[in-house]
Amino acid sequence: MIYAGVDVGGTNIKIGLVDIKGTIIADNYIKTDKTKDYKGILDDIVEDIRLLCKKAGIDYHDVTGIGMGVPGVVDSRTGTVSYSANLGWRDVPIVHGLEVASGIRAEAANDANCAAWGEYKFGASRSMDNVILVTLGTGVGSGIIIDGKLFDGVASAGGEAGHMIIVKDGKQCNCGLKGCWERYASATALIEQTQEAMDADPHSLMHEVVRKYGKISGRTAFIAAERGDAAAKKVVENYIDYIATGLINLGNIFHPNAIIIGGGVSNEGEALIAPLEDKVNSGLLANEHNPKVRIIGATLGNKAGLIGAAALVM
Amino acid sequence: MIYAGVDVGGTNIKIGLVDIKGTIIADNYIKTDKTKDYKGILDDIVEDIRLLCKKAGIDYHDVTGIGMGVPGVVDSRTGTVSYSANLGWRDVPIVHGLEVASGIRAEAANDANCAAWGEYKFGASRSMDNVILVTLGTGVGSGIIIDGKLFDGVASAGGEAGHMIIVKDGKQCNCGLKGCWERYASATALIEQTQEAMDADPHSLMHEVVRKYGKISGRTAFIAAERGDAAAKKVVENYIDYIATGLINLGNIFHPNAIIIGGGVSNEGEALIAPLEDKVNSGLLANEHNPKVRIIGATLGNKAGLIGAAALVM
Repeated sequence: MIYAGVDVGGTNIKIGLVDIKGTIIADNYIKTDKTKDYKGILDDIVEDIRLLCKKAGIDYHDVTGIGMGVPGVVDSRTGTVSYSANLGWRDVPIVHGLEVASGIRAEAANDANCAAWGEYKFGASRSMDNVILVTLGTGVGSGIIIDGKLFDGVASAGGEAGHMIIVKDGKQCNCGLKGCWERYASATALIEQTQEAMDADPHSLMHEVVRKYGKISGRTAFIAAERGDAAAKKVVENYIDYIATGLINLGNIFHPNAIIIGGGVSNEGEALIAPLEDKVNSGLLANEHNPKVRIIGATLGNKAGLIGAAALVM
Repeated sequence: MIYAGVDVGGTNIKIGLVDIKGTIIADNYIKTDKTKDYKGILDDIVEDIRLLCKKAGIDYHDVTGIGMGVPGVVDSRTGTVSYSANLGWRDVPIVHGLEVASGIRAEAANDANCAAWGEYKFGASRSMDNVILVTLGTGVGSGIIIDGKLFDGVASAGGEAGHMIIVKDGKQCNCGLKGCWERYASATALIEQTQEAMDADPHSLMHEVVRKYGKISGRTAFIAAERGDAAAKKVVENYIDYIATGLINLGNIFHPNAIIIGGGVSNEGEALIAPLEDKVNSGLLANEHNPKVRIIGATLGNKAGLIGAAALVM
């Protein structure tokens, strides 16, 4: 059995053929052509799936289903994108459109939910039935799995843990609220925090790191901290504390088996994961009487969304 | 069919006989005798159930099941109280003990979860499958129902929304964390906020209200605000804002059909509920594209726990 997974982003669309074990047989990406309406974009996607089939020596008619992840509010029950700021879509009947364009059965879900589903089925959290994926990237995304099922609330409007308020009346967020978790724990926020610390300390090693790598990034403070720079260590410590704050909230509310950390920042590995696991578990209510919440790095990387989308139709 | 519901508290134990429609046939309460071990307390409870049966003219052997709510971490799958600070219990096999003492089938769950289950089955949120009960009392409790089932996380250690951090590095909470929601949104917190405002304004009407009612309470600011006192209005407004902050977090994470407000503070009715519904919904992500999250006052009052406990065995 072969399935197609599609991970739609505002800039690119990742597309792949995936087998029943979650292995990618062939994949590539195409540009998201925003000059086209959603039907035009769906035609581009189907054309690319045909191309991938040809390349992999697979008959297009052997593709059993197409799963699609879309950034925004996707009502997976009705197959409709209620709203996507990135794509400028509103009330788009995406599943029906994809089935018409492809002639193949389709499913759709929010992209963060797809990534969570991918990690649950084939990645970091196999065999755990209660897990939350948190992605630390441009924003903070989340996907929640309860008793082995994706949970995203009424009309799929939930699962937005990045917009938990952790600092009441704190920094202004794009969403209109103040003090949202993603305003402090995203890669974007880390870069902002790094810049502030650099401005305050002209002698920090972080300046050298930025010169060497050509630009400031979410890695800057981690690299300088590893080399012993005090200002960078402080940035990393504070940043991990912000991440931990939101994870403690999720831990006290959900007490899952594990929280999976994905997104670009998760590439820092144990320098990030180990202190997070300590901080989070020491913050959970009655922690000495309860099983630990494991904190685990995502293992599917930026293919989690694609693989998880394909897994929607398996 | 007759069921017994038991709501164990640190001071009193509410006990009732409940029919299949959630109607209380007979109820009373007994003291929680902390000089006894858990078996002694269970014997007291069973004795009281026999007494209630006698009073109501019901044969004890017609009681089909006993459900019990306990403050603390109750693993409802194993029937064990992992930990109860109020009762000083740890790893107590409560369901087995109750079945031995009574000769009747038993179930147990956390008390806030029982209250949520009671409101779901027979109270404010009948016919809604995704609801959260938030109780504003001494602390802030929560019970979560997803797709018609109680959700409380691995080993029933979740469902502790009162300990969400909403003010990072904020006020010290008993749980060890800083800035927990219950530190700002409980009745205890409201009284603290009222006292602070009174200290700052010796001319506020709140002083007169306290004299009239004999003591400061969670009602003081609401009463003075209704009579137009500016300082009291400010207290109420800020307090509602604190409640709304946590509810927005729950709304963005769960997007339930409704959030039910229980606990003593919920007696304020529309003066509390109406502004909360506005604030919460205007804070939800992409709110103009999603169904509203209704905010509703609890309807079973302080009997919700007892009725919900009985409903565990229905």
